[in-house]
Amino acid sequence: WQNPRAVTYREMYAIPAKWGTAVTVQAMVFGNLGDDCATGVGFSRDPATGERAFYGDFLVNAQGEDVVAGIRTPQPLSQKAAIEDARQQGISESDRLPALEEVMPALYKQLTGIAARLEKHYRDMQDIEFTIERGRLFMLQTRNGKRTAAAALRIAVDMVGEKLIKKPEAVLRIAPEQLDQLLHPTLDPKAKKQVIAKGLPASPGAASGQVVFDPDTAEKWVKDMGRKVLLVRIETSPEDIHGMSVSEGILTARGGMTSHAAVVARGMGKCCVSGCGQAKINYERHEFAVGNHTIKEGDWITLDGSTGEVILGQVPTVRPTLNQDFKTLMGWVDEVRQLKVRANADIPNDAKVAREFNAEGIGLCRTEHMFFEADRIDAVREMILADNEQGRKTALAKIIPMQKSDFRGLFEEMKGLPVTIRLLDPPLHEFIPHKDEELRDLSAKIGVSFERLKRRAESLHEFNPMLGHRGCRLGISFPEIYKAQVQAIMEAACELLQEGYKIEPEIMIPLVGHWKELKFVGDYCREEADRVIAEFSKKTGKKIAMKYTIGTMIELPRAAITANEIARYGEFFSFGTNDLTQTTFGLSRDDSGMFLKDYLENGIYEKDPFASLDQSGVGQLIEVAIERGRETRPGLKVGICGEHGGDPSSVEFCHSAGLDYVSCSPYRVPIARLAAAQAAIRHPRSVLKAKAKARKK
Amino acid sequence: WQNPRAVTYREMYAIPAKWGTAVTVQAMVFGNLGDDCATGVGFSRDPATGERAFYGDFLVNAQGEDVVAGIRTPQPLSQKAAIEDARQQGISESDRLPALEEVMPALYKQLTGIAARLEKHYRDMQDIEFTIERGRLFMLQTRNGKRTAAAALRIAVDMVGEKLIKKPEAVLRIAPEQLDQLLHPTLDPKAKKQVIAKGLPASPGAASGQVVFDPDTAEKWVKDMGRKVLLVRIETSPEDIHGMSVSEGILTARGGMTSHAAVVARGMGKCCVSGCGQAKINYERHEFAVGNHTIKEGDWITLDGSTGEVILGQVPTVRPTLNQDFKTLMGWVDEVRQLKVRANADIPNDAKVAREFNAEGIGLCRTEHMFFEADRIDAVREMILADNEQGRKTALAKIIPMQKSDFRGLFEEMKGLPVTIRLLDPPLHEFIPHKDEELRDLSAKIGVSFERLKRRAESLHEFNPMLGHRGCRLGISFPEIYKAQVQAIMEAACELLQEGYKIEPEIMIPLVGHWKELKFVGDYCREEADRVIAEFSKKTGKKIAMKYTIGTMIELPRAAITANEIARYGEFFSFGTNDLTQTTFGLSRDDSGMFLKDYLENGIYEKDPFASLDQSGVGQLIEVAIERGRETRPGLKVGICGEHGGDPSSVEFCHSAGLDYVSCSPYRVPIARLAAAQAAIRHPRSVLKAKAKARKK
Repeated sequence: WQNPRAVTYREMYAIPAKWGTAVTVQAMVFGNLGDDCATGVGFSRDPATGERAFYGDFLVNAQGEDVVAGIRTPQPLSQKAAIEDARQQGISESDRLPALEEVMPALYKQLTGIAARLEKHYRDMQDIEFTIERGRLFMLQTRNGKRTAAAALRIAVDMVGEKLIKKPEAVLRIAPEQLDQLLHPTLDPKAKKQVIAKGLPASPGAASGQVVFDPDTAEKWVKDMGRKVLLVRIETSPEDIHGMSVSEGILTARGGMTSHAAVVARGMGKCCVSGCGQAKINYERHEFAVGNHTIKEGDWITLDGSTGEVILGQVPTVRPTLNQDFKTLMGWVDEVRQLKVRANADIPNDAKVAREFNAEGIGLCRTEHMFFEADRIDAVREMILADNEQGRKTALAKIIPMQKSDFRGLFEEMKGLPVTIRLLDPPLHEFIPHKDEELRDLSAKIGVSFERLKRRAESLHEFNPMLGHRGCRLGISFPEIYKAQVQAIMEAACELLQEGYKIEPEIMIPLVGHWKELKFVGDYCREEADRVIAEFSKKTGKKIAMKYTIGTMIELPRAAITANEIARYGEFFSFGTNDLTQTTFGLSRDDSGMFLKDYLENGIYEKDPFASLDQSGVGQLIEVAIERGRETRPGLKVGICGEHGGDPSSVEFCHSAGLDYVSCSPYRVPIARLAAAQAAIRHPRSVLKAKAKARKK
Repeated sequence: WQNPRAVTYREMYAIPAKWGTAVTVQAMVFGNLGDDCATGVGFSRDPATGERAFYGDFLVNAQGEDVVAGIRTPQPLSQKAAIEDARQQGISESDRLPALEEVMPALYKQLTGIAARLEKHYRDMQDIEFTIERGRLFMLQTRNGKRTAAAALRIAVDMVGEKLIKKPEAVLRIAPEQLDQLLHPTLDPKAKKQVIAKGLPASPGAASGQVVFDPDTAEKWVKDMGRKVLLVRIETSPEDIHGMSVSEGILTARGGMTSHAAVVARGMGKCCVSGCGQAKINYERHEFAVGNHTIKEGDWITLDGSTGEVILGQVPTVRPTLNQDFKTLMGWVDEVRQLKVRANADIPNDAKVAREFNAEGIGLCRTEHMFFEADRIDAVREMILADNEQGRKTALAKIIPMQKSDFRGLFEEMKGLPVTIRLLDPPLHEFIPHKDEELRDLSAKIGVSFERLKRRAESLHEFNPMLGHRGCRLGISFPEIYKAQVQAIMEAACELLQEGYKIEPEIMIPLVGHWKELKFVGDYCREEADRVIAEFSKKTGKKIAMKYTIGTMIELPRAAITANEIARYGEFFSFGTNDLTQTTFGLSRDDSGMFLKDYLENGIYEKDPFASLDQSGVGQLIEVAIERGRETRPGLKVGICGEHGGDPSSVEFCHSAGLDYVSCSPYRVPIARLAAAQAAIRHPRSVLKAKAKARKK
């Protein structure tokens, strides 16, 4: 009542301090007065598997703490469990500990009866504590029991079968985050582990591997030598993709929950620990130090991306399977859900995973990720390093067919579901090598002098690339780049349409802050798209009825507050909440790792705003943008494609704010679907609308 | 009517295209039918000096174009001017050109009569065109005449004396930007100049000097060799300050209107041309190339910071003086002004300039600028490079007395006017040398190994420093730094209060985005301030009645939209519109120079948003913040301390938005005062309030 948090809380909500807090006074019972006494804990169903069987431990002549203190070995409650435990531990039937069912059968019967009654009353699996004082049973406490994800699923599905609960209630019973346990390998809970450092839990799952410090070694070790590796980097950049894709997991010293490493790892379904500042990485010596430990290249470590732990050596992991319970529950989830769930996918293989998790489309295809493929990066670099429009066009002519085949692959994989393609977003220097030797190689390849390349590379340098020459700003300076991308998209779409596919590409223009940017870029993109359609119709001698839409990211505060103007030129909105969070807070996701812990420790941020949407700040801008956007364009389609699309509380916000869909990493799709269903059950949109209407009056 | 701009404009304002545009059909008169014909232009007062004398040129037997085409030499209108011209050009009285007054005396009399009547009618100096056809005078056109700043002042003041106009009208007659002509040296308009490049007009004034490429050479050449230099840098950083302060002007290849070079130069009242991308600077060779020209160290060039021109060689400049007209008009300005005008000043000398320009306080003292002084930078670096709080405290103990004496100087100079001091804002790596040799020097000085320094320096590196570990984030990670600054401020204030000064420091916490940041930092700052006051009272045996306020910058979108929460913990707001523009647009002022020209050329931005406040985007956030801030704290004092505080149209916005003051570079203070007065005349706050009230109903 007097601690600073409580005081602040009262201040905020104007709760008078003099009200005080309540105290319950209760008689005590004793389980340690002799051998006719006992104490124990029980679960009305198995908290590990969900099996419908009474489960728990007890101790004769003991008090509550003794059961959990680990001094004496507790005995199972049921005879069946006692026999099973003994069998597993190789103890003979005569030596095994007796069950409560055997020692005090009448009381056991009474206890299971009470447990069943409590379960029926609370309509959930109960975790109960009891004491037997001189042959009389006292119930100390009952509460809903904690359970594994698998148990949660089974219990929820079973209880619907038992008519204890209805389907929506079953849906509410699963914590969305818990599903991660079912989708990714986890550390074997029984295995020993020596944690040497802790970073941010950037991408869930667990993996062991031999440490490597650069992507080329990673590739060589995996492809040529068949090793399992973990890539350890100070930070990652798009140039590391080939190494990341072959690694079991990624560890970085810098970067937050939405750093490059984190985003890419989540997209790939790989575990990642980011922002592990304790790890002092030395690239020259091929080693990193944590406290007294020095980990050299080739040493084994294990990462737990769900906790952020870095562990010495190899720890066994458990790979889960998705059972019938999962499918049943996700079926109910999709029945009640009002928010659509799409996936962020850049290449056909991502799209395949997304479809397997029942994504309803692609909400974000980052075209630049295609640029890094080995067979095209040189053409991309040639384009960037060109001095003039003609030079860029020559290089683009090489890139267009490749991008076209990428888009074909994506469209084919998505079988008519909507696909939103974002035009080039990152600053061009991200594609250029930084080291002189790499520049020399490139110079030989593309026949431009090293000095000229070096000068051009230097001229592209930016102090704050996140706020630099990127997004639609590229499209304004170099229209030929966006035009080439539109050409590739529309050619792929026209071909597939003719082959019988249902297709309607959504072309997305990033980093718009002013309606004039969107008009300028949108105008020439439409012109280009129409040109491709007309040419295709002419070539094939058949009029192609190809629809497409051009929309924009809303990822800058200025775009949000002027959304009424922007909606005049954008046919859909997609909130890029990573960037919107960065600019609303003035906080770089790549650098915030350095001091975010100070914020969390001092209670200044309750959660990392890059992991969970800041509803009171960024959320206000989203609400304003939707309201103003739909004022101009009623029924405007609005989605979100930032990393928040896979965070349950952010998904709930998106539901309530009236978005049409969220889009997230393929591996987060089931989590987002569940979170969306829960939001729809808790806050049906019909009720939200009525409330909004009432507020306006 | 059909050009794209007109079409877009009509679209925006729903003006039907079929309305068409008007055409005037007029009879023609001829001044070239013989020697009884003539044509000419005249000014009802001298447009160069403002003197009340009819002034102009004519040609006998000519049409309008002939006067301006320069083929024939036009003749003066008045006899007095004709005599004076001949005298100046050394032409004898008999050889000189005759005046209209002499050739056609009756028509001249008629013309002056008409000019006087037109001036009286339009109540402003008239620029007229006339033609005489066969002895008959026709007036072709009259309009308000363009004039120099000096003439504008004189005419406005004279016309009040002549009761032609009233004081407020006189105030409206001067374009605020024109005042720059009176406050800074300008190029002699008669001198020849060879412009070799053009950058951004980042800080007004003109100067010639010998080119140097690094601040140390600048200092040596000026201090030891008595030369005049111009500092040429790819970009400047706080480490260049000593070189900038001795240079006549600064030229940078990168950076926009609010880049470091631009801001510092304006603060120093020096000319600066920034973002001159055509200049290819080569530090190694000590030269820069522009087109075919190569300028070496020591070569003379001239900069015009009002136009952005870079000129070969030396061009003479003219230094203006502020005359009685200026003082008279600025007196009227201050009578009607409702917005206060403060100056941004970091050191006592800046404060002195600010006072000379009648600033009403200091709106922003950037304490970090004191950190770069030669006698303290090493202690600052020691503080930054310390591994722990104790190390930082030891170094801070050396810094506190120096900061205290800085603050004393400022307070003394401002003689009781309010002074707002911002606690440390930039990321710490700005204070650390980047080159290995400098790090080695530092290592020897402060006795910390080079390797450790290098490691620490690297660990401070940020990808996007503008969005990094800076502002109040430093105060959250390292409370001891802000506490030391508060101690220095309050000790200085207590001493001066006791010496009889009126003093009430305003302590400003930068980069707040969340109310919890402000509460956390504000709480310990108040504690520290109260501790100093209590100790001072105890030491002097006299209770010190020292008032102070703690407020915050509003420079992040999140701060603006949650201003109702932030106002609970901040006693004043100051809009940092540079940063607010950066984050609202997601646009780095240091990098935008690279592509801003594409935006301006394509009409996407009408003005550089760092030079003139973006009223429809950033302005909305300012209005929201004021409204919400004052909901929580009625009468909340609100100012602006970004570079926009000196931009006339931004000042008008600040007046209308209900700010209490603007704060700008000392040299912009007269401009801001004039702009504020004009805003008050055009939109009196009483009228604005009535309108707002009517809107609410």
